[in-house]
Amino acid sequence: MSQAIYEFPLNEKVRTYLRLEQLFKQLEQGKTASEDWQYITFLDSLFTLLDLSERIDLRSDVLKDIESHEKNLVIWSQHPNIDDDALQFALQKILRLRESLKSNKKVGAELKEDRFLASIRQRFSIPGGTCSFDLPNLHYWLQQPSENKQQDINNWLLELTPIQQAMEITLSFLRERGRFGAIEAEKGFYQGIAEDKNELIRVLCATDEGYYPMLSGNKYRYAIRFTLFTPTMQGNSSVDSKVSFKLASC
Amino acid sequence: MSQAIYEFPLNEKVRTYLRLEQLFKQLEQGKTASEDWQYITFLDSLFTLLDLSERIDLRSDVLKDIESHEKNLVIWSQHPNIDDDALQFALQKILRLRESLKSNKKVGAELKEDRFLASIRQRFSIPGGTCSFDLPNLHYWLQQPSENKQQDINNWLLELTPIQQAMEITLSFLRERGRFGAIEAEKGFYQGIAEDKNELIRVLCATDEGYYPMLSGNKYRYAIRFTLFTPTMQGNSSVDSKVSFKLASC
Repeated sequence: MSQAIYEFPLNEKVRTYLRLEQLFKQLEQGKTASEDWQYITFLDSLFTLLDLSERIDLRSDVLKDIESHEKNLVIWSQHPNIDDDALQFALQKILRLRESLKSNKKVGAELKEDRFLASIRQRFSIPGGTCSFDLPNLHYWLQQPSENKQQDINNWLLELTPIQQAMEITLSFLRERGRFGAIEAEKGFYQGIAEDKNELIRVLCATDEGYYPMLSGNKYRYAIRFTLFTPTMQGNSSVDSKVSFKLASC
Repeated sequence: MSQAIYEFPLNEKVRTYLRLEQLFKQLEQGKTASEDWQYITFLDSLFTLLDLSERIDLRSDVLKDIESHEKNLVIWSQHPNIDDDALQFALQKILRLRESLKSNKKVGAELKEDRFLASIRQRFSIPGGTCSFDLPNLHYWLQQPSENKQQDINNWLLELTPIQQAMEITLSFLRERGRFGAIEAEKGFYQGIAEDKNELIRVLCATDEGYYPMLSGNKYRYAIRFTLFTPTMQGNSSVDSKVSFKLASC
């Protein structure tokens, strides 16, 4: 049986973090780009990430998270039976990260001041707006030797590294808060109550049974409905049999 | 010396054709996609292409072009010294294309009716809006075996093939209309007059001299200004020395 995890955030902050995580994954491919369209895709993801991070005060949200991780680690360090070396390592990493976040201005501030990026950014929102007549300077940049382009890409990514690392740590702490437990959804439907600090619902289910989970909810309660990928002739799209899946509330 | 061609359309139709040509190139990579972000990039380009083709009556523009190519080929066939086989081959291709374009409804009409594509399209305009919580059905599709995904991609592309071929033929006829001639731009500036039917200006110039061409103009006249990729300390961005380049008016 093939399976996959579907993640559903219960608040806006985690929603944004997951979006940024996906964009960071897309940015990673820029490091091995070799064709024009791959560079263009890289730049497109970079601008989307900057758009998204401008909407919220990402830096202060992330700093708050990092400081709470720090407190937790300090509390854990007082437990017996704890691997002190691993904990010290994690704590050091978090302290370094906090310093680099604090010394940073706003997320992506330097990238916003980059003349080349600033001069091409707006056109990326036009459908197909990255042709040589739209952006002859982008076309010029694309013609440069790949070492030069990779150097630029690495410089741009470097500025985002602290925020990427902080996001990675926060999401990995968050995901570890919940353990998967088996659940049966009668008639493909399940209702759950979110506990006090739940921010993320993770659903592990089959990907070869023709259905996928949809979640609606808020920080108090949520409902999962399993939906057919290919609706039946009658236009019925809900699963009406029992679905076994696993759920983790994080 | 490394060189590249910069193309500048003189009317809206050619502008759109060049945008579509670039999008079709990006769609090609979908056929060899293997990672999630590549499939997402493919879908993004597909939706951009549909957006663009909805704005104009692409099918009737393209049909008009194809019919004029047909007339030209018929005229050429009366010349002596013409390779009759090659010409017949081209004519056959164009006739087949015209038939398949005529039997088609609007460009991408079938794709618009595709339930899966229709259900995910809107979210693609949200920055980072393709996460598993935004589009659990996309996430389900991404988990399917790659043969299935490639099959879907091929089916989607198949519907666009006539328009892609017509665009390719039109642009290749257009590009062949002009021959590159050497030009010297004093102080990095050149003014030209567009002849009656010129629709596209092509500039062939160095890509390792630190400048790129910018074109402004309309169907009567145009100006090319060579601009520095990295502006000088004084903020001066125009080239003020002589630039040798090649130009073709098509």
